Amino acid sequence: MTIDPVKLDKLAQVAIKVGLQLAEGQDLVMTAPMTAAPLVRRITEHAYKAGAGLVTTIYSDEEATLARYKHANSASFDKAAGWLYSGMADAFKNNAARLAISGDNPMMLAGQDPEKVTRAMRANSAAYKPALQLITGFDINWNIVSYPTTAWAKLVFPNDSEEEAVSKLADAIFKASRVDQDDPIAAWAEHNANLKKRWTWLNGKSFASLHYTGPGTDLTVGLADGHRWKGGASEAKNGITCNPNIPTEEVFTTPHKLRVDGYVAGTKPLSHNGALIEEMQARFEGGKLVEFKAGKNGDLFNKVLDTDEGGRRLGEVALVPHSSPISASGILFFNTLYDENASCHIAQGQCYSDCFVGGKDLTQEQISAQGGNTSNIHIDWMIGSDKIDINGVHADGTTEPVMRGGEWAN
Amino acid sequence: MTIDPVKLDKLAQVAIKVGLQLAEGQDLVMTAPMTAAPLVRRITEHAYKAGAGLVTTIYSDEEATLARYKHANSASFDKAAGWLYSGMADAFKNNAARLAISGDNPMMLAGQDPEKVTRAMRANSAAYKPALQLITGFDINWNIVSYPTTAWAKLVFPNDSEEEAVSKLADAIFKASRVDQDDPIAAWAEHNANLKKRWTWLNGKSFASLHYTGPGTDLTVGLADGHRWKGGASEAKNGITCNPNIPTEEVFTTPHKLRVDGYVAGTKPLSHNGALIEEMQARFEGGKLVEFKAGKNGDLFNKVLDTDEGGRRLGEVALVPHSSPISASGILFFNTLYDENASCHIAQGQCYSDCFVGGKDLTQEQISAQGGNTSNIHIDWMIGSDKIDINGVHADGTTEPVMRGGEWAN
Ligand SMILES: [Zn+2]
Ligand SMILES: [Zn+2]
Ligand SMILES: [Zn+2]
Ligand SMILES: [Zn+2]
Repeated sequence: MTIDPVKLDKLAQVAIKVGLQLAEGQDLVMTAPMTAAPLVRRITEHAYKAGAGLVTTIYSDEEATLARYKHANSASFDKAAGWLYSGMADAFKNNAARLAISGDNPMMLAGQDPEKVTRAMRANSAAYKPALQLITGFDINWNIVSYPTTAWAKLVFPNDSEEEAVSKLADAIFKASRVDQDDPIAAWAEHNANLKKRWTWLNGKSFASLHYTGPGTDLTVGLADGHRWKGGASEAKNGITCNPNIPTEEVFTTPHKLRVDGYVAGTKPLSHNGALIEEMQARFEGGKLVEFKAGKNGDLFNKVLDTDEGGRRLGEVALVPHSSPISASGILFFNTLYDENASCHIAQGQCYSDCFVGGKDLTQEQISAQGGNTSNIHIDWMIGSDKIDINGVHADGTTEPVMRGGEWAN
Repeated sequence: MTIDPVKLDKLAQVAIKVGLQLAEGQDLVMTAPMTAAPLVRRITEHAYKAGAGLVTTIYSDEEATLARYKHANSASFDKAAGWLYSGMADAFKNNAARLAISGDNPMMLAGQDPEKVTRAMRANSAAYKPALQLITGFDINWNIVSYPTTAWAKLVFPNDSEEEAVSKLADAIFKASRVDQDDPIAAWAEHNANLKKRWTWLNGKSFASLHYTGPGTDLTVGLADGHRWKGGASEAKNGITCNPNIPTEEVFTTPHKLRVDGYVAGTKPLSHNGALIEEMQARFEGGKLVEFKAGKNGDLFNKVLDTDEGGRRLGEVALVPHSSPISASGILFFNTLYDENASCHIAQGQCYSDCFVGGKDLTQEQISAQGGNTSNIHIDWMIGSDKIDINGVHADGTTEPVMRGGEWAN
């Protein structure tokens, strides 16, 4: 058995009971690659056991996606399933919970025409936006969890047999998701309490900005007016406390879209739609990423940044200690859900409205006025390492240490 | 190889080029059981080769369905994915074509609580109605085609090994779908011409009713005012000529919902949501099925007939010669798409608005005034055999033979 069935079942339980805290009678909309069907079935069972109304899974299929790139007319690549995403948005408006299973082959689109990839992604992002805003705005409880598909495992462990690779990736997922522990639900309660201690401290400080220094980095990230730090469990507008990311190690908030200045170096490769962007270097002026270079695939990333007006501004700033378990594993997962949790990071694009004090009641206009960025993209990239120091800067210019050598300073 | 890959590819081509006649740039919404993925992938490829815009497949999973029956609260069974069906209706309003792959285990729900099955089906039918009306009303080109899943094959050929059973069912599907022929597309053109000859003759006669006699049967089926016979290829409102059913052997029209009288005996078992209804006997008065008995599962079918006001009235009457290839195969498929094409049949419930002269422009009210029935169900049941005679009855009471001993009389 390459994937331990007992731990897989525990992962499904964690997704329903910790990730979603699915409520009695609540519907669930799930998305997954077809190759993740074994986890979908475990989750479906635990959802119904928890009293779910109706569980609906929308499967994607890598082979169908590749058939499109191979055979479709050019005009196809400006299309998206808007009808499906509008339907999902309707489901969320009716309080359906949302669970995404990640596990797609990160290199699925490697070798495809980058122009078609970019157009397809742009069309998809625009069509998905109404549904995504209900998710990122925490109108409902939501969760992302991973399944060790063969294609993904072979990318992470290229020198192992398929069976070995899947087994290793499964173990890494189970460990990061805390389902290797006797009582995963208790372990998550403890972890959430630790994260809460960190964001409570940061919220109490109410820093005006963070100042990063390290190799290739001297960056000031202004924080949005009325920003709020979050991490771990999060209360959605429907009153349910969910853990949107399984795993998660970060505390994060909203930067000010006009107040980011200086230069910063990426510390890990970024896997984006099948391409690996490496040795990233960026310069910000007045919040905007005005200059971007990379050792590999810099042109591609520059195009992604130009998706829309907000693509070159930040929507998230997140702190993760260098000693966090995912970082300690030393594995490059080629999957943002994992790799962002191995390192301090920033994200280009859309902000989380919930990272504002009273964010649930703010209009889009108010969020924008307080510095919250809007975009069809949200792409995290890693800037943390054991060589990064971060100071919190108060409105009066005084500073105090937040992180030293990639670890919490206190 | 249990399923001939060349014939499977031909079946996919027939689905796209004959079944749908998919237009350049047209989107496609497909539904399929997960076990039919090999055919979905062939169809997806041929759709894109034909210039499809975007192909979106919604998969169903028997295991997820069974998990619901096993673990869900009672309240779950009044729910349906209305958001998904509304989305599909939106896609059809934007001219997406619709392809359904049939192949689910016909006995999937056997052994489940019949009350839950009926409630779930009722909720689903009500939620699906807006989308179904766009399909049955031929707003867009649509098609149903079959894939020989293992569960279905083992039901049809219980004494064979899985591999043997799938191979036999695949061959039966390929033969009935005419993909065993050198040029399936030419074969379908010829078949459509033959069906057209029949419905042209019937439309010329404009019978007031059909009178069926045979063992246990003396039934008069009044035809709707302004009814129109159809069969084979059909022009949708979007201007595309499609073949909605692959295979199809029937010519059919709309009965008058108030003018069906007499008694009739079923000639084949009916497989409905996992139950087999056998030895059916029905009596009609003024269009309504007032008395229904069956050797097996009569109570269940009586409940289905009571789904709504229109469940006990007819929405379709169809003529299929006893010598048609599917009948000649002697196989009971437990699948309406096949079994209805082995025999003359009638359908309880919803009528096809396209089976009226000028039906595309008629309102629901006009259709109803001309005798067209409305319901959330459409269930075909078989009343043909080699012992059935059918006369056409003119408005003045004169008659002429339509079928003798189950074959066309001329
Ligand atoms: Zn983050
Ligand atoms: Zn992020
Ligand atoms: Zn029929
Ligand atoms: Zn029918």
